[in-house]
Amino acid sequence: MVWLRERITLRPRPRGVHLVTREVVEGLPGLAAVRVGVLHLFIRHTSASLALNENASPDVRADLEEWFGRAVPDGTPWFRHTLEGPDDMPAHVKAVLVGESLTLPVGDGRLDLGTWQGVYLCEHRDDGGPRAVTATVWGE
Amino acid sequence: MVWLRERITLRPRPRGVHLVTREVVEGLPGLAAVRVGVLHLFIRHTSASLALNENASPDVRADLEEWFGRAVPDGTPWFRHTLEGPDDMPAHVKAVLVGESLTLPVGDGRLDLGTWQGVYLCEHRDDGGPRAVTATVWGE
Amino acid sequence: MVWLRERITLRPRPRGVHLVTREVVEGLPGLAAVRVGVLHLFIRHTSASLALNENASPDVRADLEEWFGRAVPDGTPWFRHTLEGPDDMPAHVKAVLVGESLTLPVGDGRLDLGTWQGVYLCEHRDDGGPRAVTATVWGE
Repeated sequence: MVWLRERITLRPRPRGVHLVTREVVEGLPGLAAVRVGVLHLFIRHTSASLALNENASPDVRADLEEWFGRAVPDGTPWFRHTLEGPDDMPAHVKAVLVGESLTLPVGDGRLDLGTWQGVYLCEHRDDGGPRAVTATVWGE
Repeated sequence: MVWLRERITLRPRPRGVHLVTREVVEGLPGLAAVRVGVLHLFIRHTSASLALNENASPDVRADLEEWFGRAVPDGTPWFRHTLEGPDDMPAHVKAVLVGESLTLPVGDGRLDLGTWQGVYLCEHRDDGGPRAVTATVWGE
Repeated sequence: MVWLRERITLRPRPRGVHLVTREVVEGLPGLAAVRVGVLHLFIRHTSASLALNENASPDVRADLEEWFGRAVPDGTPWFRHTLEGPDDMPAHVKAVLVGESLTLPVGDGRLDLGTWQGVYLCEHRDDGGPRAVTATVWGE
């Protein structure tokens, strides 16, 4: 049985949906030793989230971002939690909708995703800063 | 390798978003023995859900509840599944959006969350009653 | 410690929400040997998703499908990613909202769900074809 636990710090990014597969995998050199297992990625924040979707067209990421912006608009007038700015409460709602973690299969020493799948950092704040991710791998 | 499996019964709560981190952790005394591992929380219902978000301001929880209530209104006129009341089909939609489980890192004998993260029970029914959660921990 | 890894191919289905619990469990004969553990189901696509919800009334599945169709309409005029047809970008948004994986408790040799819970394939394309799922079980 193998256990790996790494803290990966994703560099600051503007609000939007960002492809971070390479950054995540480079933070996990120990993956190469895992024949069969699972990778759990967990973002330690409440205003950014992790998703898995299309890794090719940047338009998919732009459309996702715009859909979320329209579904949960900045400065929604009836929000009570407004002290931290007009993008804060929408960020919490989007984070609940998208989710704070991904659980992904590992096989033969690498992340075993479908051809078109990539890991997204969904940055819901205008100035979210660096984002900390706890990565855990278990397998054999 | 350590395996723990506990059934945690969350006491009945009114419709809304409730912080239950303490109630969950108190149901898992065995966590203290886990150096590195994972906790999986799984709600055994289709009209309530589990989420992770801001553990401080009750306004965040009230705004989340209101956003979901507006996105999936009670008594939506075109819903077919109406036999169990006007809050039932909306509860199913919200449960699919939020999700029935959480997978969380465990480290050094405790739940290893970000500073501002707490476990939410999202009770989508007016009278949902007690909610059963299956908690599983694996680690070493 | 037991590790199982299976590739399950779900047969092609029309757009909509489909109950696939039986098809998934039949693809996992090794479950019977697991006293306590976890099943991870992971769909290797970006335009279909997996959810857990009510396993009885087909109306619940029809209402869910209609809710998603209204929340993310086909042919949304401001979508940039339109090359692959009017149902493609909506499928990506829905897949992010619903999620690509399920993590489920296994106990005493079977999937340990609540009475009313079943596994859904959410097919977001009109002609999505067969869908590949990577199933991983770990336990003892």
